[in-house]
Amino acid sequence: MKDFALDPLLTADSVGVADLPLAAVRLMRDANYPWLLLVPRRAGLCELTDLDATERSMLMEEIAQASAALRSVVSCDKLNVAALGNVVPQLHVHVIARRRDDPAWPRPVWGAVPAKSIPQARRRPLRRGSRND
Amino acid sequence: MKDFALDPLLTADSVGVADLPLAAVRLMRDANYPWLLLVPRRAGLCELTDLDATERSMLMEEIAQASAALRSVVSCDKLNVAALGNVVPQLHVHVIARRRDDPAWPRPVWGAVPAKSIPQARRRPLRRGSRND
Repeated sequence: MKDFALDPLLTADSVGVADLPLAAVRLMRDANYPWLLLVPRRAGLCELTDLDATERSMLMEEIAQASAALRSVVSCDKLNVAALGNVVPQLHVHVIARRRDDPAWPRPVWGAVPAKSIPQARRRPLRRGSRND
Repeated sequence: MKDFALDPLLTADSVGVADLPLAAVRLMRDANYPWLLLVPRRAGLCELTDLDATERSMLMEEIAQASAALRSVVSCDKLNVAALGNVVPQLHVHVIARRRDDPAWPRPVWGAVPAKSIPQARRRPLRRGSRND
């Protein structure tokens, strides 16, 4: 079976912060929003339905964990959770903390405003042994 | 406990087609895309994390069922699955069949182009006993 490899566009647009049992957790390089990506580490995934039911359930729990982690460090008015993949087909789930005063509110974030650089100090891994590629 | 009531904006923008064990399935009134909504029939839900783990797993499987149902009736290049809720906070999940020749591709559908009316003949319930309010 082909090994998992992160899509080059996802690599360029985000920073690895942790590995959950199924998904790599990455921070999007956009300081406009606290914005995580969950990328299940299986080769060849495109749709949620490419996972089996057990893996889908794991992914849902990892989405819940990522949501709770975001809420524990930032205040927000709404979480946005989405698996789109029109540009990068490799399965990835966005978990975004939205605020009524963020630059895209109430629109979805994609394409709304140009990405804003993240200060270097905020790019540290969340814990020892995390991925940061 | 307060009874579940569908948000008036969701009612206006969509047509009931079926009830799964957890979620009402609704067809968005926008002929630009085959576009379903899943609305868990519990009062007071806003985020995925307002469901317990068992309900989240059920919802994920209902998302997979809705995805498979869409794929069985329309050809598409990608499914978009999203729980946003910035405008309507009641928890609802979009499951949208996207094609490279649809009017918003590759952008997300929300706000991309004005909604297009659905011909009356396509508004029939999918099966007997379905909701159609």
